[in-house]
Amino acid sequence: MDVAIIGGTGYGAVELIRFLHNHPHVHVTKIISHSNSGTDLAEVYPHLVDIIDLEMIALDIGDLAKEVELVFFATPSNVSKHYIPALVDQGVRCIDLSGDFRLRDGEKYQAYYGEEMVSQSYINQAVYGLPELNKEQIKQASILANPGCFPTATTLGLIPVLEKDLVERKSIIIDAKTGTSGAGRGLSLNVHFSEMNENFKAYQLGVHKHIPEIEQVLTARANEDIQVTFTPHIVPMTRGIMSTMYVDLKDSQSTGQLIAMYEDYYKNDPFVRIRKEGIIPSTREVYGSNYCDIGLYADQRTGKLIIVSVIDNLVKGASGQAIQNMNIMCGWDETTGLNQLPIYP
Amino acid sequence: MDVAIIGGTGYGAVELIRFLHNHPHVHVTKIISHSNSGTDLAEVYPHLVDIIDLEMIALDIGDLAKEVELVFFATPSNVSKHYIPALVDQGVRCIDLSGDFRLRDGEKYQAYYGEEMVSQSYINQAVYGLPELNKEQIKQASILANPGCFPTATTLGLIPVLEKDLVERKSIIIDAKTGTSGAGRGLSLNVHFSEMNENFKAYQLGVHKHIPEIEQVLTARANEDIQVTFTPHIVPMTRGIMSTMYVDLKDSQSTGQLIAMYEDYYKNDPFVRIRKEGIIPSTREVYGSNYCDIGLYADQRTGKLIIVSVIDNLVKGASGQAIQNMNIMCGWDETTGLNQLPIYP
Amino acid sequence: MDVAIIGGTGYGAVELIRFLHNHPHVHVTKIISHSNSGTDLAEVYPHLVDIIDLEMIALDIGDLAKEVELVFFATPSNVSKHYIPALVDQGVRCIDLSGDFRLRDGEKYQAYYGEEMVSQSYINQAVYGLPELNKEQIKQASILANPGCFPTATTLGLIPVLEKDLVERKSIIIDAKTGTSGAGRGLSLNVHFSEMNENFKAYQLGVHKHIPEIEQVLTARANEDIQVTFTPHIVPMTRGIMSTMYVDLKDSQSTGQLIAMYEDYYKNDPFVRIRKEGIIPSTREVYGSNYCDIGLYADQRTGKLIIVSVIDNLVKGASGQAIQNMNIMCGWDETTGLNQLPIYP
Amino acid sequence: MDVAIIGGTGYGAVELIRFLHNHPHVHVTKIISHSNSGTDLAEVYPHLVDIIDLEMIALDIGDLAKEVELVFFATPSNVSKHYIPALVDQGVRCIDLSGDFRLRDGEKYQAYYGEEMVSQSYINQAVYGLPELNKEQIKQASILANPGCFPTATTLGLIPVLEKDLVERKSIIIDAKTGTSGAGRGLSLNVHFSEMNENFKAYQLGVHKHIPEIEQVLTARANEDIQVTFTPHIVPMTRGIMSTMYVDLKDSQSTGQLIAMYEDYYKNDPFVRIRKEGIIPSTREVYGSNYCDIGLYADQRTGKLIIVSVIDNLVKGASGQAIQNMNIMCGWDETTGLNQLPIYP
Repeated sequence: MDVAIIGGTGYGAVELIRFLHNHPHVHVTKIISHSNSGTDLAEVYPHLVDIIDLEMIALDIGDLAKEVELVFFATPSNVSKHYIPALVDQGVRCIDLSGDFRLRDGEKYQAYYGEEMVSQSYINQAVYGLPELNKEQIKQASILANPGCFPTATTLGLIPVLEKDLVERKSIIIDAKTGTSGAGRGLSLNVHFSEMNENFKAYQLGVHKHIPEIEQVLTARANEDIQVTFTPHIVPMTRGIMSTMYVDLKDSQSTGQLIAMYEDYYKNDPFVRIRKEGIIPSTREVYGSNYCDIGLYADQRTGKLIIVSVIDNLVKGASGQAIQNMNIMCGWDETTGLNQLPIYP
Repeated sequence: MDVAIIGGTGYGAVELIRFLHNHPHVHVTKIISHSNSGTDLAEVYPHLVDIIDLEMIALDIGDLAKEVELVFFATPSNVSKHYIPALVDQGVRCIDLSGDFRLRDGEKYQAYYGEEMVSQSYINQAVYGLPELNKEQIKQASILANPGCFPTATTLGLIPVLEKDLVERKSIIIDAKTGTSGAGRGLSLNVHFSEMNENFKAYQLGVHKHIPEIEQVLTARANEDIQVTFTPHIVPMTRGIMSTMYVDLKDSQSTGQLIAMYEDYYKNDPFVRIRKEGIIPSTREVYGSNYCDIGLYADQRTGKLIIVSVIDNLVKGASGQAIQNMNIMCGWDETTGLNQLPIYP
Repeated sequence: MDVAIIGGTGYGAVELIRFLHNHPHVHVTKIISHSNSGTDLAEVYPHLVDIIDLEMIALDIGDLAKEVELVFFATPSNVSKHYIPALVDQGVRCIDLSGDFRLRDGEKYQAYYGEEMVSQSYINQAVYGLPELNKEQIKQASILANPGCFPTATTLGLIPVLEKDLVERKSIIIDAKTGTSGAGRGLSLNVHFSEMNENFKAYQLGVHKHIPEIEQVLTARANEDIQVTFTPHIVPMTRGIMSTMYVDLKDSQSTGQLIAMYEDYYKNDPFVRIRKEGIIPSTREVYGSNYCDIGLYADQRTGKLIIVSVIDNLVKGASGQAIQNMNIMCGWDETTGLNQLPIYP
Repeated sequence: MDVAIIGGTGYGAVELIRFLHNHPHVHVTKIISHSNSGTDLAEVYPHLVDIIDLEMIALDIGDLAKEVELVFFATPSNVSKHYIPALVDQGVRCIDLSGDFRLRDGEKYQAYYGEEMVSQSYINQAVYGLPELNKEQIKQASILANPGCFPTATTLGLIPVLEKDLVERKSIIIDAKTGTSGAGRGLSLNVHFSEMNENFKAYQLGVHKHIPEIEQVLTARANEDIQVTFTPHIVPMTRGIMSTMYVDLKDSQSTGQLIAMYEDYYKNDPFVRIRKEGIIPSTREVYGSNYCDIGLYADQRTGKLIIVSVIDNLVKGASGQAIQNMNIMCGWDETTGLNQLPIYP
């Protein structure tokens, strides 16, 4: 299957290229970059020299619709909404790694993304691509809204206890930490090496784009309006997300009981691993891989459950999950091309 | 004034030496190390070569009592309790950077420190040295229990709202992050470079020694039994602590009102800086200095207050605070020898 | 083909496991660890949980010889020499990632490795496994001495100009830099995070084990006794080696001419990439992959050639190269199982 | 003494502010920033909040000449040359941390700095401020050209053996490594965290601005035209330079003899420390301080001397040295305000 990637100079795109290079059913034939059309990809990313021989090209929707069956958008916010409608209208399936098609509520989109949402008819076609939740819908998707990195780590950690109605819904606190690659390749003082190295920061308290996305997913699963307190932090490392979550248990539960329940909940999901009692995963343990690892600790003193969920933000938090979604959309095994081990150390 | 430092090869000791080197009233005449007696300090710490010319010696309580007026203990847990009683009985004031004299409750000490506490009469002599809380008592202390790193960052962040009774006391959640130097110079796989670099970890959920210490301080200020949920994490950096705290506000408060209250609360404390609305401090902004910087965000959607407090774990979290305490004990200005700017970048 | 790995808790072993997991012709059936026999591998390396289900076992040469066709030794120095003779005598091919079979001169072995070398008859059977130099001999090897990390990066950079006799042989200077994983998983103050982070060190000047290995390879190719000045440094990062080499050119050569010569020299070697004029590779560009990337700069002012060669020390510098050698020994394409892209960023 | 700092938002300026804050004879009264005039310094550098209360202002040469006695230029290349002449003509002494007044040869300036040099009469007034070489001239300087970071570490390491005529002058090779803060606060992909972390790079081979500066200093001391091969590298850390230098010894010398000679050479220089035989300094050992530490190793096998010199690039490589120069210019002890210990760890 021939596919195209739009947004060729970002980290999402190169990570797609890394995984698709070894995918048995897919061939990346076009890499599209507005700012670098005419340049060889390997000039911008020298690690690809002598391996990937593709010149980046400008976007031409008409050509694209004729030449590929599926398009990945690895673009900043508020870009894909301008192009996906035309592509899907011409029968090209689209996987969008940005947030343009994730929210269902236009007002919230406006509030958090600062622009108008795409028209509701296309939102209605879009499927939110968290395979552990809605594999069936993903199979049929023409527009696949690939989840954000924080929402992936967070909702996979919270959904089992919410669905089983084990926790007070007003008590959800999410203290999230990410490596710098989540901020992309665009330059900013925040992730200038001398400012970020040997430093730890909180940012965007109360206003992060992923808040409405997390709430939308949790609300749908809980059948009740859920609001969360979400604080993102940035860690002096390149890859990795840890989401540490705090909820009040309705009734006392042992850590072991909860672990058993999580194991059961995810028993058919090859990329979710639940850790044994007493073990909390660290971000390095999923580095470079599509796993989401979850550790649990029920604090008997305070009645709170602490859930720790880790992913590689560029893999399960972006490109790996996009490929997992593509596999499902195409009827292939969802692990195809994604069975690399985490890289350690 | 002649002082001695016990625990000469640890990071607490070298950080004491760094600050005392420029202190106008103090002379470090003895550095005591059980494991390195007979070795020059500069052999173990080559950054001190040609500057500090001291041979480490073995501990002899009798000699020490004759030759110095004050002793710093920068020792691991369960060491100072064996020596401080004899020293104070001979009139030597002691500042203990370890946890041996911090807790008042012997059962909790036993539970978290794994050994018996020192006899209660010495605990009764000990003053908990958080200068922002109890400067008057510190002045008279013969045994000064220097606070732990996490408790310093955390209690400075929580006390104002607890004292003013603005928050639900059952709701306190502390998500804490530390650099690796808090783990000391002792080798362990956890802080082996190849395992810790490009990694982020949670550890000791529910069992960390600083839990009873934080609860003891908060309980005393709140006049009510306080229990906290405390999760420490370790960041791939050497220095710095951030404590991100979550509490439910009893009544709606604006961020601005709360900032004004905190500024007023700490108006006489030279080392606490409250950030303006919209600004959250990062750990690098206090690097190498004795400041504790606090940022606040009252989330109007969820009714929660987020308090972010940062310190340098080796300075305000250990040696800097010990010197601040010594200054107060000796009647000097509490900033003496501590007026270096943070190092940035 | 069933293979065993000895030295199961080291970084060399886990990196072998990572690549062999996706190798189409090989199955790792035994992982041997003296210190951890009876423990699940995933307990020591939690990133493998739910993927690799193998218990580490103690070494039994007799059993091993019956059950596997090939054994990888990922052991410290002076271990494999005690076991490989018995295995090869029973027809098991051995790939040794340690230095025990690399040197041909027993006196030098004694001087740099501190023990006696294995008997000369086994040294004579051993083939030095740098596939770019001696693919033919590797095919027949029963004992494969897998090259050291520094020697791999260094000799691949120097051999073309030495063979073509373009440089003064007395002038060779090698300034090498490595990430910390080269020091292994064993604890030491040198690679304690708080000591290594935000630090850059030179070490083992004039006495590093890789000096005689580099000289032996270069001497063999140059047909003349070669001595080098070699200074290793350690960089605050986990993976990657850069070897910066300085040689005096006999006659003036342009950078372009030399690049063309190198491209020609390595035209049949899939894992050596020569960079274009004006481009010098960085270590991240080969991260996680088996590539060795080389950049050249002929300084017309001083008549010196600067050669910069980078590898991932755990891949082309250890386990990746071991698998490349296995592929050649078994008659498979040398890239089998090694065609992952570098991970960037 | 009232002084001004021009270039208020760069790392050179904040490091000047850090040291001058505790300097007994100096008061920083003006901080000038073209791009940030009207902004509080603490808004741009929040670590200074509540400590330094200065608004940055635009440059007005006339006002400045009336109000301060000395001006520090912490500006990019090709800026100070436009302003220093007018200031010195009005009797204001200037210390220039940029390279505008370092070179004496206008052609080389043009070649490496890309613009015309300031007029020769001002160059003639300028004194190159390496206090270990020319303290007497510095005392009288009206224009002080503060040395570059690489030239400081490098020339302090090479001058003793060059002056004593112990080495072949054609053989000098300098392999230099720097932290990222040397690249300043200006954004670039090179020092974008995700690109620089876990990476090691060589850059600007053969064209770095510091080549003619190093050659000019060495030529002057050697009384013979000296050319060097200089390769800068960038390390994933914020602060620190190591210069590893290789020279051919004319006659055999033991490491001990050379160390004794260096110790004697620098016996009156408080900021140069020569390490004992067998000890090579690492960059962390001078972190945050004005020391230059030097280690030596004479390789008896190859007849080469390896010199390792480390500094903190922002202190002895920039602002600390500028203050040392100011102290000498003003007749104060050269260590005034600079006697902080290195920060370790």
